[in-house]
Amino acid sequence: MRDVYHEELDTIGSTLIEMTGLVGTAMSRATSALLDADLQVAESVISADDAVDALQRALDARALDLLARQQPVAGDLRTIITSLRMSADLERMGDLARHIAKVARLRYPESAVPEVLRDTIAEMGRIAVELARKAGEVIDGRDVDLARGLPDEDDAMDQLHRQLFGDLLDKKTEYSTETAIDVTLIGRYYERYADHAVSVARRLIFLVTGEQD
Amino acid sequence: MRDVYHEELDTIGSTLIEMTGLVGTAMSRATSALLDADLQVAESVISADDAVDALQRALDARALDLLARQQPVAGDLRTIITSLRMSADLERMGDLARHIAKVARLRYPESAVPEVLRDTIAEMGRIAVELARKAGEVIDGRDVDLARGLPDEDDAMDQLHRQLFGDLLDKKTEYSTETAIDVTLIGRYYERYADHAVSVARRLIFLVTGEQD
Repeated sequence: MRDVYHEELDTIGSTLIEMTGLVGTAMSRATSALLDADLQVAESVISADDAVDALQRALDARALDLLARQQPVAGDLRTIITSLRMSADLERMGDLARHIAKVARLRYPESAVPEVLRDTIAEMGRIAVELARKAGEVIDGRDVDLARGLPDEDDAMDQLHRQLFGDLLDKKTEYSTETAIDVTLIGRYYERYADHAVSVARRLIFLVTGEQD
Repeated sequence: MRDVYHEELDTIGSTLIEMTGLVGTAMSRATSALLDADLQVAESVISADDAVDALQRALDARALDLLARQQPVAGDLRTIITSLRMSADLERMGDLARHIAKVARLRYPESAVPEVLRDTIAEMGRIAVELARKAGEVIDGRDVDLARGLPDEDDAMDQLHRQLFGDLLDKKTEYSTETAIDVTLIGRYYERYADHAVSVARRLIFLVTGEQD
């Protein structure tokens, strides 16, 4: 049987994995809400973000309490500090999914995304959700090899992000300023979400290997 | 004479204040580069951000080392954890100033900001720099009263941010899609910079009073 201290550390780890699940679901649903102009789904993403924030607060309180009461050294200390940083990344990923849902809500019953840009946004959503799923696996398995692969998928996201601007600027289609604003913000939200997922992976690599990239 | 431990804590505090100075200067210069289409200033902002990143790395290493070697309790522990979080906010503020300088560089010799939006952007820049300056004072004086005032200035920033979108959408002027994209991103960078300055102030309030807002 594990002692209370190590049970607390385990709980911190499982909370992080739970957060990756919630922010992945949030992004998947936010993308649907955006592409299908689905108000109900948008609203549910917006209200579900409170649960992510609550998990972050609980995790942070637990981590600070462990630091104060147990004065952990070396490996455990690094685990706790890394967990605090990962929880900040994951909380932010939740915010970004919520931002996308808010754009969907703002433009309802229209879709904020013009038909010709749908495929690009759908693919950005798919990669974002995949990155969140992998971030969860990286934490769960302390999987350095998997973690090292995340920047490649982030490169694919950056590529799509550039393509989105290219499509917006393509003279063949004329977009309204409102659409240009919406799509610029949406693109930025996906890109930042991916950055934070990669950040989670980098922190895990640092935790396990001590390598700072 | 103070012992080495407390000297280290003091160094962390003065590094944070130094970072607020650097990111304030960066934002002031990035705004000039943007409005005056000044390539040289833009380049200098972009390269100067390395110094902010280096300060963050040094601060974080020092903080983690203190945690590991000294096992601080209560107040000192909270100070160190808060400092790690503030350094992350300040590092991000540096990135956002650099992003603005990069937009200026991308559009050189043109200005990315159309004449009619200059005043709004200039005012956003002024508030951003003011927020960084006050964040430094808040840390330096552990000034809870000053910290409590920062959200008001952030409200002014949000107001300007909304006005910027309103101006972009105003039918009186027709903007290119490129301008709509640039101004949308620039506006977002200023707004996020202000959010992080407010976050620094909130963390100081929590550190001193234990109040979580």
